[in-house]
Amino acid sequence: MLKGIIRGNIVSTRKQESLVGSKFMEVQLIKNGEFTDEYIIAIDSVGAGIGETVLITTGSSARLALHNTSSPADAVIVGIVD
Amino acid sequence: MLKGIIRGNIVSTRKQESLVGSKFMEVQLIKNGEFTDEYIIAIDSVGAGIGETVLITTGSSARLALHNTSSPADAVIVGIVD
Amino acid sequence: MLKGIIRGNIVSTRKQESLVGSKFMEVQLIKNGEFTDEYIIAIDSVGAGIGETVLITTGSSARLALHNTSSPADAVIVGIVD
Amino acid sequence: MLKGIIRGNIVSTRKQESLVGSKFMEVQLIKNGEFTDEYIIAIDSVGAGIGETVLITTGSSARLALHNTSSPADAVIVGIVD
Amino acid sequence: MLKGIIRGNIVSTRKQESLVGSKFMEVQLIKNGEFTDEYIIAIDSVGAGIGETVLITTGSSARLALHNTSSPADAVIVGIVD
Repeated sequence: MLKGIIRGNIVSTRKQESLVGSKFMEVQLIKNGEFTDEYIIAIDSVGAGIGETVLITTGSSARLALHNTSSPADAVIVGIVD
Repeated sequence: MLKGIIRGNIVSTRKQESLVGSKFMEVQLIKNGEFTDEYIIAIDSVGAGIGETVLITTGSSARLALHNTSSPADAVIVGIVD
Repeated sequence: MLKGIIRGNIVSTRKQESLVGSKFMEVQLIKNGEFTDEYIIAIDSVGAGIGETVLITTGSSARLALHNTSSPADAVIVGIVD
Repeated sequence: MLKGIIRGNIVSTRKQESLVGSKFMEVQLIKNGEFTDEYIIAIDSVGAGIGETVLITTGSSARLALHNTSSPADAVIVGIVD
Repeated sequence: MLKGIIRGNIVSTRKQESLVGSKFMEVQLIKNGEFTDEYIIAIDSVGAGIGETVLITTGSSARLALHNTSSPADAVIVGIVD
């Protein structure tokens, strides 16, 4: 998994139907407690908001995180770090 | 997912039959609102054009985005950012 | 696989139900015997602790390491290096 | 997908039986029309040769490109750029 | 696939049962004939030894290389370069 802080959300009106209702978050990755220059766009699955530190799963595991194996998601927020 | 801006399209006459009809776009990745030096080739699935900012899904999720689980695509444009 | 040393654990109270009980470790990657600037968050499956050098598997193989093909894990510690 | 130019081929006499007959190409990646320092080894599926610019698919999609879902390939050339 | 030279082997007494008997090799990646700073840990499947140049497949394809789709391997040596 990756750890990062949610910096913003991304609005996409024209998108695949299977993604309608998904909340896209831009997340800045954190390594060893320091912010990096890396960002990823992840779909929220745990009610996380801007400024929260989260855990992200990627790849085929992201679909499982959405309980939707036909979703085209490749990155999903699966936890909020305390 | 990755966010980026479509910079051009790629023409490939000789390609696998399963990719005939696919529109290949060269996309410059954007992180935190800034253009990066990273580029990816993605197949369009939402009618996106050059200059538009888009969301891309990668890996096995790309095949799901094309509703074609036997497609050899590994990166597909799934949304246009407002 | 990746090799690294466990530097800490990550506490996440609010997370996907399928991840409850998982132990999240922050691991600093090691290449050629030297510490790198790269870190990954992996779920422990072998009883590894902070300071131990471990092997991590990533991607869809991580789910298999957990013997749970519906887990959203994408990185799992599968061995402790002697 | 990735775009690159075929720089050479790789000969491997001792390899897995499932890979016998595969043509391994070393491909220098191209981003935004410029050569990069990145290289990947891909199996050809379209009759591409040294000096040609090609499209490569990676990961599980590579197996689909070979129409062989039990192939251990993780990168396959699927098109020649005009 | 990736190309690299085997620099050492990694001993892990405490590991997942499914990995018992696997030979873990630390491989320094080679790009365009030059050694890089990148290393990967791969399981050998072709009898390769230290100092040999090899081809590595990664991701879900690695499991297929081991003819064991429930193995948690994510990188396997599939050929020795002549």
